[in-house]
Amino acid sequence: MSIVNMKDFGVEPDQGSDATLAVFAAIEKCKELERPTLVFPKGTYHFWPEYAVERQYFIPNHDQNKNRRITFPLIGMKGLTIDGRGSEFIFHGLTLPFVLDGCQEMTVKNLTIDWERPMLSQGQVIGVANQSFDVEIPWDYPYDIVDRQLVFKGEGWQEPCKGIIEMDPLTKSPLFQSGDYLNYGNYAKLHVKEVSPGVVRFSEAGSQLPKLGSQLIFQCGERDCPGFFINNSTDTQLMAIDMHHTIGMGVIGQRSENISLQSFNVKLREGTNRLFTTSADATHFVYCRGIIDIEGCLFENQMDDPCNVHGIYMTFFKRIAEDTLLLRLNHKQQRGAEVFLPGERVRFIQKQSLMPHFETLVKSVRCLNPEFYLVTFDRKLPNSIDLHSAVENVSWAADLRIRNCIARGNRARGFLITTSGKVWIEGNTISTPGAAIKISGDANYWFESGAVQDITIRNNVFQDCNTCFPEWGSAAIDIDPEIQKPDSQGDCYHANIIIENNTFIAFHPYLVKGQSVNGVFVRNNVVKRSERYPSPKQMTFEVILKNCKNVIVDHIKYPSEPLIIVKY
Amino acid sequence: MSIVNMKDFGVEPDQGSDATLAVFAAIEKCKELERPTLVFPKGTYHFWPEYAVERQYFIPNHDQNKNRRITFPLIGMKGLTIDGRGSEFIFHGLTLPFVLDGCQEMTVKNLTIDWERPMLSQGQVIGVANQSFDVEIPWDYPYDIVDRQLVFKGEGWQEPCKGIIEMDPLTKSPLFQSGDYLNYGNYAKLHVKEVSPGVVRFSEAGSQLPKLGSQLIFQCGERDCPGFFINNSTDTQLMAIDMHHTIGMGVIGQRSENISLQSFNVKLREGTNRLFTTSADATHFVYCRGIIDIEGCLFENQMDDPCNVHGIYMTFFKRIAEDTLLLRLNHKQQRGAEVFLPGERVRFIQKQSLMPHFETLVKSVRCLNPEFYLVTFDRKLPNSIDLHSAVENVSWAADLRIRNCIARGNRARGFLITTSGKVWIEGNTISTPGAAIKISGDANYWFESGAVQDITIRNNVFQDCNTCFPEWGSAAIDIDPEIQKPDSQGDCYHANIIIENNTFIAFHPYLVKGQSVNGVFVRNNVVKRSERYPSPKQMTFEVILKNCKNVIVDHIKYPSEPLIIVKY
Repeated sequence: MSIVNMKDFGVEPDQGSDATLAVFAAIEKCKELERPTLVFPKGTYHFWPEYAVERQYFIPNHDQNKNRRITFPLIGMKGLTIDGRGSEFIFHGLTLPFVLDGCQEMTVKNLTIDWERPMLSQGQVIGVANQSFDVEIPWDYPYDIVDRQLVFKGEGWQEPCKGIIEMDPLTKSPLFQSGDYLNYGNYAKLHVKEVSPGVVRFSEAGSQLPKLGSQLIFQCGERDCPGFFINNSTDTQLMAIDMHHTIGMGVIGQRSENISLQSFNVKLREGTNRLFTTSADATHFVYCRGIIDIEGCLFENQMDDPCNVHGIYMTFFKRIAEDTLLLRLNHKQQRGAEVFLPGERVRFIQKQSLMPHFETLVKSVRCLNPEFYLVTFDRKLPNSIDLHSAVENVSWAADLRIRNCIARGNRARGFLITTSGKVWIEGNTISTPGAAIKISGDANYWFESGAVQDITIRNNVFQDCNTCFPEWGSAAIDIDPEIQKPDSQGDCYHANIIIENNTFIAFHPYLVKGQSVNGVFVRNNVVKRSERYPSPKQMTFEVILKNCKNVIVDHIKYPSEPLIIVKY
Repeated sequence: MSIVNMKDFGVEPDQGSDATLAVFAAIEKCKELERPTLVFPKGTYHFWPEYAVERQYFIPNHDQNKNRRITFPLIGMKGLTIDGRGSEFIFHGLTLPFVLDGCQEMTVKNLTIDWERPMLSQGQVIGVANQSFDVEIPWDYPYDIVDRQLVFKGEGWQEPCKGIIEMDPLTKSPLFQSGDYLNYGNYAKLHVKEVSPGVVRFSEAGSQLPKLGSQLIFQCGERDCPGFFINNSTDTQLMAIDMHHTIGMGVIGQRSENISLQSFNVKLREGTNRLFTTSADATHFVYCRGIIDIEGCLFENQMDDPCNVHGIYMTFFKRIAEDTLLLRLNHKQQRGAEVFLPGERVRFIQKQSLMPHFETLVKSVRCLNPEFYLVTFDRKLPNSIDLHSAVENVSWAADLRIRNCIARGNRARGFLITTSGKVWIEGNTISTPGAAIKISGDANYWFESGAVQDITIRNNVFQDCNTCFPEWGSAAIDIDPEIQKPDSQGDCYHANIIIENNTFIAFHPYLVKGQSVNGVFVRNNVVKRSERYPSPKQMTFEVILKNCKNVIVDHIKYPSEPLIIVKY
């Protein structure tokens, strides 16, 4: 095994200067070697975008139509290990730390990732009045008021604030019953002015107001720079990595086989009062295969879910020939994705019921532009394929194992599972303001495909989930495929969901809610009442299932009911 | 020769629907054939961007960092002829008509190009008062006043006005002594309000005001969609094409060999009162070779020069190793250009004097990003190469023949020549508000390289050039390399400029101004006084040369003077 040491490329730790060009040269050196290890002597390294490699990537679930500046452009490499030896990597501005594209057997380990100036900002509520509140914003989150907008400033960027998440400094989580009430459209209604240097007043705030002392997280910018973009790669390992921030997701994988995350921690930065980490999901995997193995990881305080695994539905747009369709990628953040390649197997579904009605193979794909693709199939398509159809790739579906992880303090949900691979969710402690586990699928808004076939949720602790109910999910385990019109035959979208030996510590009645599953097994779970949040004294805990088949809840079989409510 | 007819792809002329998908299919068909001709039955065809092929191209001298939607994506093709048979192609929104990339022996002919809604707008001055003027904007140039800005609206775009060019409806040219006085920074000072539907008042206009009855051209948007982008191609012919508008240049060629334009007309649209054509240069060629042959073309009323031929200077940024430099592309519209490839010959110059001091070959090029390139050369570089150095590619320099063309009515200059190939400018009639011919070169602002070595300007008529003097050039023939500090040895940047048998019909004294040329031959020209524009009664015509060597002006030899003024 050959060692390449960063010190041989003119870079010492703790210099404070830009190590980007040295990394570029070291990677070029590694390309000449067999199974190299690139070693960083322990210390702090800084990376700016100025000399970073620029590429256009359509990174799924990020904002498109932009080029990215990449510090570690790992493209077409095999067998490289990057060992940070406990170093801290500090990024500046719009910089994407790692791209692994067309790689095999790559490992990145033993390092910390943070930004000098994060894209998120934070302030404390110091005054609350009728329909208005004042926030003190510390000097390390510089801002301006421009055209009556609150605009945050960073290294090479200026971005208007687009929303606020209210955090409880005691629980370090979104405040009880807060949710997105100051985000998106609600944020846009607020009036902003500076009342004194570092103090900003928000007025026209409506009836729900933040609490004195709350920390507010200000969201701005687009999803530009995930920590790791893993694309068309096999056998990727990320180990012992602490990620304090990214301008996007922590890890986003696409069309990659076998991804392993061990002690990959999206984690608050100690020594600061920051209550945020990454500005979107901690991890997210689109059309992967093999196994996604996530073990011993902490996912806290990111601005979206800890993990989401899914495929993509393209929709029918126009029939061009007997065997050829013009298909559309609908969601803006999915545009440009390579959904199908020749030889891959596809399944057509009916958009309203999500029920499949035809399968075949892809013969050729011509991407016209990120939105429209001309796809030719290996046979004549039946007339049932029409404007009500969507289509998914069934050649790519990962198994997923999430074990001994902790998820807490983030905005939104916990683990979002839409993959037909085998799934194990075991030994985790999940404490999320929305659903701890969400099993959805829809072909009309998010276009995230992948009916589950075999999922085991076992030995987990669900601790005070759904603190922002009904926002972000209606039960600790929320099985909610977005079916507009159930199948007339009674067929189900999902199958075989086992929920066993878990502990629910809950202040909230809904343990499991679900619909359209053939095979639900809820057994041997322990339910404890939590006193941490207010709840009705006489509350019972419930499992609610609708349009499901082959249901067993705690040894009671419910073979055919349209609506099953089990109370504890 | 095989004919592919558009009517076989579901498109009839004059249908009014989008022919883009049919063109895509027809091009795919052509790829299967030997030397095909794609024929359009005569009529009108429409093209929208929605289903057009999208690619990222760094198109030189256009705005970068964007993807383009391309109607005719001619990529890697050979021997295709597209014959419009006199058809009219109407484009909609941000659509780039033709890309020829990596092609050989391609011909496009017999067609007209226009836009349903051009990116330029036009209105008439109907009132002039103290520091303010009113403009009537017809309904076919829809606009809004947004945040006190005049914003024009088109198909899929809304763009603030960025400047005004004042046109004289009698001469159909920029008004005498107008220039850019209402453009760029001067425009930004104007206050705008609507005084009645379709009438906009501009106030705070300073002392120079437009004339009652003038037509004003409103510029907006970026340089997005040239008519033809010819990249990495050989033997391209454009024949009998009338181009009434583009959102960018008419033709932009890069790294291409042998480009022929015959009866390629950038031309006002008859039947309208439009006084504009393309929104930037009619033709522009960067690092081409072989011959650029422009014959019998009309270039009128485009918003920049009729033709510009040049290379690019990259500048020294940092020495990385004995043989390796970090080089920079400085001008924003040059970013991303492929300036050097391995094996090509480069010349280093001193930025202030433009004098060369070292030549060598390129060994490897690694484009880090559109701004910075790591370039390794075939030998150790001398210490004289430093922050004062720029470098050009001397393996690419086109010959240029411009014959029997007419240039008139446009904003800015005429023919801009910076190429070391052999150049003939013959038999043209040039009537431009700036210099008719500009021979420049600079390494500090535009970074356009290419000292001329052999240029013959013969049998042309220069009719009333420099109507906007001193803006856009100080003589009909303006030889003005931007030398900050002349070479101490007296060496010259340009060489061998012959100006003979031309007719200057001029109201303006300066026929030729020049500096830093070794070999200027001005002979047998006819100079006539024009009465069309006001000029002093006692005016003499002048040829002014500075820091030139080997000068012959009308059989009088001027061997060594630092400043030569010849009066007629």
